[in-house]
Amino acid sequence: MNTAPTTAHTSAPRPVYLDCDTGIDDSMALAYLLRSPEVELVGVGTVSGNVDAARAARNTLDLLALAGRPDVPVAVGAHHPLAGEFAGPVPHIHGENGVGGIALAPSDRRPVAEDAATLLGRLAREHAGALSVITVGPTTNIATALRRDPELPGLVRDVTTMGGAALVPGNVTAVAEANVRNDPEAAAELIAAPWDVMLVPLDVTLENQLTEADREALLGADDPLAQAVGAMLDHYFGFYTPLYGRRGCALHDPLAAAIAVGSVQPTRAPAVELVIDTTHGPGRGQTIADLRGQRLGPVDRPGVRTRVVLDTDRPLGPLLVERLLGTARAAA
Amino acid sequence: MNTAPTTAHTSAPRPVYLDCDTGIDDSMALAYLLRSPEVELVGVGTVSGNVDAARAARNTLDLLALAGRPDVPVAVGAHHPLAGEFAGPVPHIHGENGVGGIALAPSDRRPVAEDAATLLGRLAREHAGALSVITVGPTTNIATALRRDPELPGLVRDVTTMGGAALVPGNVTAVAEANVRNDPEAAAELIAAPWDVMLVPLDVTLENQLTEADREALLGADDPLAQAVGAMLDHYFGFYTPLYGRRGCALHDPLAAAIAVGSVQPTRAPAVELVIDTTHGPGRGQTIADLRGQRLGPVDRPGVRTRVVLDTDRPLGPLLVERLLGTARAAA
Repeated sequence: MNTAPTTAHTSAPRPVYLDCDTGIDDSMALAYLLRSPEVELVGVGTVSGNVDAARAARNTLDLLALAGRPDVPVAVGAHHPLAGEFAGPVPHIHGENGVGGIALAPSDRRPVAEDAATLLGRLAREHAGALSVITVGPTTNIATALRRDPELPGLVRDVTTMGGAALVPGNVTAVAEANVRNDPEAAAELIAAPWDVMLVPLDVTLENQLTEADREALLGADDPLAQAVGAMLDHYFGFYTPLYGRRGCALHDPLAAAIAVGSVQPTRAPAVELVIDTTHGPGRGQTIADLRGQRLGPVDRPGVRTRVVLDTDRPLGPLLVERLLGTARAAA
Repeated sequence: MNTAPTTAHTSAPRPVYLDCDTGIDDSMALAYLLRSPEVELVGVGTVSGNVDAARAARNTLDLLALAGRPDVPVAVGAHHPLAGEFAGPVPHIHGENGVGGIALAPSDRRPVAEDAATLLGRLAREHAGALSVITVGPTTNIATALRRDPELPGLVRDVTTMGGAALVPGNVTAVAEANVRNDPEAAAELIAAPWDVMLVPLDVTLENQLTEADREALLGADDPLAQAVGAMLDHYFGFYTPLYGRRGCALHDPLAAAIAVGSVQPTRAPAVELVIDTTHGPGRGQTIADLRGQRLGPVDRPGVRTRVVLDTDRPLGPLLVERLLGTARAAA
């Protein structure tokens, strides 16, 4: 394992807002952000997806306490998508409690009184021009914040959003990925807003994996946060074993975090028109990226501010383990 | 070039019905079928797509005359798709007359009096259980034949249809391929019918190309049909040059013909659910193939009769040139 510092950071850490449905891979994304010196997590909003928004907040608070960061504000966000109702959690993937059935020590903190969209709006003004927004769940809270404050896009530095499937099959339908499918209308509003969006789809997240050796390394850590991630991965690995033919898991949400942090760099991420299918036909929830004309190499469409990540410079797995074990920080 | 016989054919040639919108690559498909001893072309129906149905019939008759096969019946089919109206020809791709602007010697034959759907229905009964149907244009005529005769699927041996884009971008929208997009409702009816369908999508047709050397070989042939194909390719190559970065073209329609003939074999063609997006949303005309769960290798869904070709055993280009030059037949 490379124990050299993975990123030279000489400037002040960038403020980051995370919107999540915590969730095992959300937990990894959260841990990754907390252990990345390039960024400072200034707030977390939750949404229903892997679990419901309230449960996601509970899990997030417990993880923050475990990480020694009980100061980070957590706001409960939308329980239902913009249209329709929350379809319910996915315990076969994330466990009954969203964190693989492991018992996290309960934090005595509570969510903040404001909702996630309000927290996001407030943080965007407090950190005007500097805030990076990372979404790893359905984007209902972001759409709600956009509706409440049309100036929001001008206040935010950039948006990194885990979702969609460009040239690979979906994971909840033949063409739709879960985060987008769970609130297509919200994803459409996020995509349509005038800000820089980096879409991190299944095309790349499925190519970044953790192995059983990685999990054992996390389990053996001194850091209770890394230990907890290692423990909850047992359930998650079970879900992914048939997909990969061996124990392991995809790194959906942490890849969005690592790209937002800058520790994983997209090497192919053309700026292309994105459209979300909000019909009620068979394509509902599909993230349609117009990737025509890219055969000879990535081509950016002029004036387009939405990028789709199709390849990255390094595998996230070893880097994630390194950051959660603190080996990179110790060497820095 | 391999001049050995490409397929051992000991049985009688299989009867084939071709439905096309002739078109330059339709011309190649037609020529391929006429020069393949494994099959006997027993009828051609035309439809509006690359050109209108009447023009497609004219081109087909002229090509059949050039090939010395004026006996093959040609029926004009649907001018308009099942819903809406024909969007018009695409002269920037196929030339003003559909055959790259070259002047084919006009045949004195006329289309048969019956329409294409009727011709197909009649041929299916005449060759009950034996007829292979190949579609290389919008499938309006097939849908019309199915509506007229619900017994049709039981009479037809198999259907090979050029269309769709499974894991690659579309060619007329981000997700839709031209043949399907030009009549999504008809494609949906073809896919839903109880017969064996082999879908030949852009995923494979774009990987099979002709080169400038291939074109020159055809131009230098003794056979006037091969010469004509070589001549019309000049225009077609111009359209494809920006896509491939060199002069050449994709082999959309002839690949469907070669797979139907059996001279190119699919090596990855899982039986999966296919759904055509017939909404009027951004996915209209998309051929949604459910390719989830195929990561570790092709998996056939039980009871499913629609296959999607994702890989083949050999490049079609050299084989097409060989067949059109007659070198394979001469050696056989």
